[in-house]
Amino acid sequence: MHDLFQTPWNFLGLPEKVSTPSNSRGWLLPIPYESTTSYGAGTRDGAAAIIAASRQVELYDREFAGEPAMDYGIHTMLPLNPVHHSPDAMVRAIEDAVAELLSGTPRPEVLGVLGGEHSISAGVVRGLARAQTSKSLVAVHVDAHADMREEYEGSPYSHACAAKRILEVCPIFQIGIRNLSSEEAAFLRGRRDVRTVFSEEAADPKGRFLQDLAQFVRNKRVFLTVDLDGLDPSIMPAVGTPEPGGISWERMLEIARTVCASAASVPVFDVVELAPIPALRAPDFLAAKLVYKLFSYILAKSAKGTRRRNRHGRD
Amino acid sequence: MHDLFQTPWNFLGLPEKVSTPSNSRGWLLPIPYESTTSYGAGTRDGAAAIIAASRQVELYDREFAGEPAMDYGIHTMLPLNPVHHSPDAMVRAIEDAVAELLSGTPRPEVLGVLGGEHSISAGVVRGLARAQTSKSLVAVHVDAHADMREEYEGSPYSHACAAKRILEVCPIFQIGIRNLSSEEAAFLRGRRDVRTVFSEEAADPKGRFLQDLAQFVRNKRVFLTVDLDGLDPSIMPAVGTPEPGGISWERMLEIARTVCASAASVPVFDVVELAPIPALRAPDFLAAKLVYKLFSYILAKSAKGTRRRNRHGRD
Amino acid sequence: MHDLFQTPWNFLGLPEKVSTPSNSRGWLLPIPYESTTSYGAGTRDGAAAIIAASRQVELYDREFAGEPAMDYGIHTMLPLNPVHHSPDAMVRAIEDAVAELLSGTPRPEVLGVLGGEHSISAGVVRGLARAQTSKSLVAVHVDAHADMREEYEGSPYSHACAAKRILEVCPIFQIGIRNLSSEEAAFLRGRRDVRTVFSEEAADPKGRFLQDLAQFVRNKRVFLTVDLDGLDPSIMPAVGTPEPGGISWERMLEIARTVCASAASVPVFDVVELAPIPALRAPDFLAAKLVYKLFSYILAKSAKGTRRRNRHGRD
Amino acid sequence: MHDLFQTPWNFLGLPEKVSTPSNSRGWLLPIPYESTTSYGAGTRDGAAAIIAASRQVELYDREFAGEPAMDYGIHTMLPLNPVHHSPDAMVRAIEDAVAELLSGTPRPEVLGVLGGEHSISAGVVRGLARAQTSKSLVAVHVDAHADMREEYEGSPYSHACAAKRILEVCPIFQIGIRNLSSEEAAFLRGRRDVRTVFSEEAADPKGRFLQDLAQFVRNKRVFLTVDLDGLDPSIMPAVGTPEPGGISWERMLEIARTVCASAASVPVFDVVELAPIPALRAPDFLAAKLVYKLFSYILAKSAKGTRRRNRHGRD
Amino acid sequence: MHDLFQTPWNFLGLPEKVSTPSNSRGWLLPIPYESTTSYGAGTRDGAAAIIAASRQVELYDREFAGEPAMDYGIHTMLPLNPVHHSPDAMVRAIEDAVAELLSGTPRPEVLGVLGGEHSISAGVVRGLARAQTSKSLVAVHVDAHADMREEYEGSPYSHACAAKRILEVCPIFQIGIRNLSSEEAAFLRGRRDVRTVFSEEAADPKGRFLQDLAQFVRNKRVFLTVDLDGLDPSIMPAVGTPEPGGISWERMLEIARTVCASAASVPVFDVVELAPIPALRAPDFLAAKLVYKLFSYILAKSAKGTRRRNRHGRD
Amino acid sequence: MHDLFQTPWNFLGLPEKVSTPSNSRGWLLPIPYESTTSYGAGTRDGAAAIIAASRQVELYDREFAGEPAMDYGIHTMLPLNPVHHSPDAMVRAIEDAVAELLSGTPRPEVLGVLGGEHSISAGVVRGLARAQTSKSLVAVHVDAHADMREEYEGSPYSHACAAKRILEVCPIFQIGIRNLSSEEAAFLRGRRDVRTVFSEEAADPKGRFLQDLAQFVRNKRVFLTVDLDGLDPSIMPAVGTPEPGGISWERMLEIARTVCASAASVPVFDVVELAPIPALRAPDFLAAKLVYKLFSYILAKSAKGTRRRNRHGRD
Repeated sequence: MHDLFQTPWNFLGLPEKVSTPSNSRGWLLPIPYESTTSYGAGTRDGAAAIIAASRQVELYDREFAGEPAMDYGIHTMLPLNPVHHSPDAMVRAIEDAVAELLSGTPRPEVLGVLGGEHSISAGVVRGLARAQTSKSLVAVHVDAHADMREEYEGSPYSHACAAKRILEVCPIFQIGIRNLSSEEAAFLRGRRDVRTVFSEEAADPKGRFLQDLAQFVRNKRVFLTVDLDGLDPSIMPAVGTPEPGGISWERMLEIARTVCASAASVPVFDVVELAPIPALRAPDFLAAKLVYKLFSYILAKSAKGTRRRNRHGRD
Repeated sequence: MHDLFQTPWNFLGLPEKVSTPSNSRGWLLPIPYESTTSYGAGTRDGAAAIIAASRQVELYDREFAGEPAMDYGIHTMLPLNPVHHSPDAMVRAIEDAVAELLSGTPRPEVLGVLGGEHSISAGVVRGLARAQTSKSLVAVHVDAHADMREEYEGSPYSHACAAKRILEVCPIFQIGIRNLSSEEAAFLRGRRDVRTVFSEEAADPKGRFLQDLAQFVRNKRVFLTVDLDGLDPSIMPAVGTPEPGGISWERMLEIARTVCASAASVPVFDVVELAPIPALRAPDFLAAKLVYKLFSYILAKSAKGTRRRNRHGRD
Repeated sequence: MHDLFQTPWNFLGLPEKVSTPSNSRGWLLPIPYESTTSYGAGTRDGAAAIIAASRQVELYDREFAGEPAMDYGIHTMLPLNPVHHSPDAMVRAIEDAVAELLSGTPRPEVLGVLGGEHSISAGVVRGLARAQTSKSLVAVHVDAHADMREEYEGSPYSHACAAKRILEVCPIFQIGIRNLSSEEAAFLRGRRDVRTVFSEEAADPKGRFLQDLAQFVRNKRVFLTVDLDGLDPSIMPAVGTPEPGGISWERMLEIARTVCASAASVPVFDVVELAPIPALRAPDFLAAKLVYKLFSYILAKSAKGTRRRNRHGRD
Repeated sequence: MHDLFQTPWNFLGLPEKVSTPSNSRGWLLPIPYESTTSYGAGTRDGAAAIIAASRQVELYDREFAGEPAMDYGIHTMLPLNPVHHSPDAMVRAIEDAVAELLSGTPRPEVLGVLGGEHSISAGVVRGLARAQTSKSLVAVHVDAHADMREEYEGSPYSHACAAKRILEVCPIFQIGIRNLSSEEAAFLRGRRDVRTVFSEEAADPKGRFLQDLAQFVRNKRVFLTVDLDGLDPSIMPAVGTPEPGGISWERMLEIARTVCASAASVPVFDVVELAPIPALRAPDFLAAKLVYKLFSYILAKSAKGTRRRNRHGRD
Repeated sequence: MHDLFQTPWNFLGLPEKVSTPSNSRGWLLPIPYESTTSYGAGTRDGAAAIIAASRQVELYDREFAGEPAMDYGIHTMLPLNPVHHSPDAMVRAIEDAVAELLSGTPRPEVLGVLGGEHSISAGVVRGLARAQTSKSLVAVHVDAHADMREEYEGSPYSHACAAKRILEVCPIFQIGIRNLSSEEAAFLRGRRDVRTVFSEEAADPKGRFLQDLAQFVRNKRVFLTVDLDGLDPSIMPAVGTPEPGGISWERMLEIARTVCASAASVPVFDVVELAPIPALRAPDFLAAKLVYKLFSYILAKSAKGTRRRNRHGRD
Repeated sequence: MHDLFQTPWNFLGLPEKVSTPSNSRGWLLPIPYESTTSYGAGTRDGAAAIIAASRQVELYDREFAGEPAMDYGIHTMLPLNPVHHSPDAMVRAIEDAVAELLSGTPRPEVLGVLGGEHSISAGVVRGLARAQTSKSLVAVHVDAHADMREEYEGSPYSHACAAKRILEVCPIFQIGIRNLSSEEAAFLRGRRDVRTVFSEEAADPKGRFLQDLAQFVRNKRVFLTVDLDGLDPSIMPAVGTPEPGGISWERMLEIARTVCASAASVPVFDVVELAPIPALRAPDFLAAKLVYKLFSYILAKSAKGTRRRNRHGRD
């Protein structure tokens, strides 16, 4: 049977019955904010590109032997309007919006946020910390850059300060880092609230750091923030500063599975810094697939145990 | 005052009160169909690019000294799904959809259609002819190509046959033509149901053909079909075969004003063949502005008389 | 010595003595057909891009310690004209053309076909089945998608149904699959005429599935169909839906070597779905090199045994 | 004679003797600031693109029958660093820098500023007003947009408010405007300190508004601010919102000549909003040529009278 | 009727009966040479892009009320191989090739040459001068640049010296010039063998210089050399240095008509400096159309008188 | 603290105190020469793109636990002007420039050269051989192509002959080769002055060839020439002929470390053949990072021993 009209312009092109607020356990909030990026502009178009690409992503996921989104539902929200009064004001607006969303009725079980530049994460994590206080919060941070600057180009809310702002809220576990400044290197030395897995360690075939990661998130509420430049430029060139030596697609999924399987909960994640390259859709598509995987790892947990076993070979 | 969330993803980014079906006198139907194009692919992305660009178009229009869309409303429909069984089947699907839309409740006073390739116009005009029979129908056709082939690349529903298919439904007035085949030249000789204004005549500074055009549409229901390659490549390079020597923006508006001012009604128009060029937004923006102008010329008619007078100089 | 004029515009830029029909054991047929693609248009330009890039491919191949094409010859045919009456009609036209080519005089020992979209393979395999009946036929299918839909967007001849149409002709061995629908997953369960090597298995360093593959093609005539999106997006981004987690260049060659070494014959192969990205020539170049390798693995077989031994190190 | 090394990377590729601060009557300050742009990002790369293109601009100018820059000299400064604390802070930083530059020793006779986005003009005009107080100041403003909003997307320093901020400093003469909001239209009605030449009037072949313009600047110090989207998209597509119906190259030069010939002085001008399109160099080149013309009209005034006479035909 | 295979990959996609050497009065020689270009590389791809685009150009030409190429025939030659020993050697190779072609059997009545960069014209005109000596030779030169440098970047055969090298062979009439150096300006003063129509004169609506042009070519053999950057960047952005203020499409045709109608013969023309912009096909298409027009103006002369009369309106 | 103006436009954006000739142990010479490239133009823009990207490279390098460039200093020279008289003349100009630079006062301890096309290396190595004669010289050559042709397209100084020209000066160790001609294969057989590590050997996980490499450079002065197409197209698509099966980023660094640790000295290196792809910055960035690494491996040697130990994990 062939439908006369296309599905609504939402993430994955989901039909209405699994995309209204009340029918959806996952909500997706685009924040197409770009203001402090210094090189390789374009993150403001990232969220829209991810949603456009997601419409080509197959709903069926072999890892779950089904169409998980048809079970849990994803509601795609209207994008948050940029506030250009100042990065500070924008971060506050995001904090308010996120806190309100997580406390409202209906509200999402999981809120996915699409950037826009990484500076939005400061607002996201603050909103989360304000709205939910039951369990202690930790952050897992995939990135090529430490993002631990106190201030950059005159603003404490630059994308280059994202992790520093998050660290003011909760401990952080960084993966894939391969670029940092003297100041950041000095700052990281001896910090007990930051664990930095540099890119060589992140690429270790055995993935030994994944155990530390599991330990780090155990019994915690987790905020997962993925700066896409953490991935290798061969599969993710569409970022502002594509650093060679990054994380592979398979490793990225292992990280996500580890976090979602071990954490008490992952109420909020964001995927940021996609700066789409005209005519090169592979990065957009990969990002869309990653967002779907993240929702599924969190919301379709129970199914995974049985399904993962026979992932190799025919289902 | 600054809104927290962006307006819905519709044409012009209109708020809900002037974009629901029942609140809107104009409806906009995207048909992202591309199948028979022989060169310069990309028309399937045209409708989406026009809608994206339209969100940057100012609602205020000096020619109307106001925000006409806030008065008449435009409802952006979900895109029609392509049917790839055959071009024939697609044209029938369009015919059915258009006929149904024009006879339904609520229904649009004016239906704008966004291509996709020009072959869709065959379905659009047939649907219109079926739904409304009160007045005799004529077509006004802006294009670089005569589109009068009986068949092309094995299909009578190729984009190169668009005008021929329309001509089977009603007489046609073509403007801007500067490319045709021997076969088409022979066919056009002596036809009384086709008036072809070639590009040189269309560029005549005095615009003498506009009187003929006014005469042609007088007391008629008009189907206006704009193949964007009728415009000059300097302002509209984003088409499959950009022919030098085309229509200027100012002349295009004069044509539109003439049709809308003289016709009994213009219940349906389409704007087709935009093949967006990555990173070149000017053509998308121009097309969006043209679509808004067309809606306004038809739906905000009464206001024009008084306003056009002081169009030059300050309002 | 420097030639005054360039070589003819054929695959590899071969001189006439090894590129006329009668001098060439391999023929190459471009079918620049694109009609049912839903996203990421551009496959109609794929064949031309492969031929353009091939002119930069070195004739000398270390694996064969010589210039194999200078021995067996490749005749580049004029492209098949698209038929836009319907995908059905196009598939029939391809079937007729292929059947006729394989039965004509002179005729190719190996026919390589360049897409265009994957839907052409239905016609290619039918033409092959019709022309040659001596040995039982099987298909080897490299792809990211199962392509086992019965119908897609209204057509049984969509690119998303390519493998299903092939399966109507002969058994199929799929490699690299990492995207399928619920319907396809259900269909594949328990089928004895389809072997699906999913992407994880295809990436297995030991390549254990290659033994199954050798077994599958033994004593068979093989139709090899390569949808380039089976390769990893890091090396092949120029496809409509670039799925992360694909096949590497080295593995692709192992697959090709296995098929060509074990099969009774490989009379026809196709390489489809290249959608060239302006200014990104690496994918075109890789595809051209793959096509040359395929011709050589089939037509320069005898040489391989001795040569492959000392592939590592200096020749 | 052929130089071993290229000229320094400055505007026009000038040799050192006419490009050091003390040898140059004209200084050029790039301000690659982009923060509040809502659509069509890229203005941060505009200044660099203009300088790159300028190196291809011929030093010889027929209108001056010589190489005027070799007489007056142009010193290209290092770009101003963006301040991302807030648009407000950035505007203040610009104001300070400009004021200081104009009062320093050595100091430029004419300061040209390259954007970046239009919001920088608020800082530029304030800096000028602070540094020089002898004559009354007026602004001439070429643009497609009125830019008369009080605030936009939460900031009074948005690019959409540029003219409003300038108007707080001095009267303004706007040319080429073809896009404004209801609010702006209302604001402009009856204002005595703004003269708005809409696009139709700006395109008038006789250019009657040029007399008003001459009158407006007579005996005044002029700040000339050119938003490149005032030009027609056919020659200037590389802007965020390319509005059809813009100013031609010839008219732009007439405006510049009129201002420079009639004003008491033009101590500062800016050229803003170039958002370079990869691979499309014509807009960058045009902008570079415009900047050179502006410097020459101001600094090589005396030569013009005699030379302009025989501009047509051979020199 | 629909052909199974596409036409050969030649200019206009002509069938064999009007594209073999002996059947064709016009021959087309691509010279994809690029070596001395200083900015905006890409002219080596120009000839191929023109041929690709030409396949979309309609054979029927209203100005001739027929398909002139089907009468006179055009043979597309294999491209001349670049010689990279030195520009000097390349120019000699071109001279030899052109002289030989024009003296061979069969030989073209008209030889069209496609660049590559403008430096090739030195070889072309020398070859012509050597092969044919009956009538005195003159050159008509459309360009934005005077190209009258004695040497540029160390080579007398730079594209910036093209006209100077031609002038060593015959007098020259330049049209559209708007960029020259001091040295060139000095050189041009008082030269009797050069007539330079600067861009303002070239744009004169009355086109008064056309009479001089007719006079200049009367009873002469003409070498017509068109550097595409002579055209306005709005219609021809795909050149290395796109200078604003260029020639319109209509004026370009008037120039061509004037030359072809008044000259004794136009045995050779070239069209050079197209540097195709990926995804922007309008310039390629315009260049292809221009080449077809040039062939027709020269080879289908007789038809024009009667046909041009009723060019406006229906045929 | 925030600087008002940006750093000078030099490699890494270094402040003056570590970028003047006398303060810098490393000098960087851009040679934006492109003349003989046959496909995939654009290497003339490579040097500028590397410098632009380098400004985003972090000065801090974890491998050195510091900001090595702040210790040794890098002086970015003005680019060498192309000489278009002939490739031969250009090579001589480069030889002279390099010899003079290495013998001048002040002079660089290490000279890095940025291409441009690979043909420049012939001049670079000759200049080096002329200037320094103390130790025997060897070359290490990373490339996809053997570049051992005697002549190509009429020139012995084609980029396809780069290694052959180097071999006339000193023995050569080639790594990553995967494309060569019959002629080159024959030439290489039995040569004692060339060691060719083909791509399969270069990809060997254990990297056994690295010992041979260490042996080859021991006690030698080394000229290191990196043709970026030696790297895998997945990370380095921005080259003329991107051959699949190339060197990874990690392996490239191992090669560089081996050479710099074992050689007596590495007075000169070049990095050539970057042909930037508009909007794809990852390759430019990787090249910039490689250049910085090369300078550091050579000039910050002593620091490495201690630092490399704790490269994994936190510093």
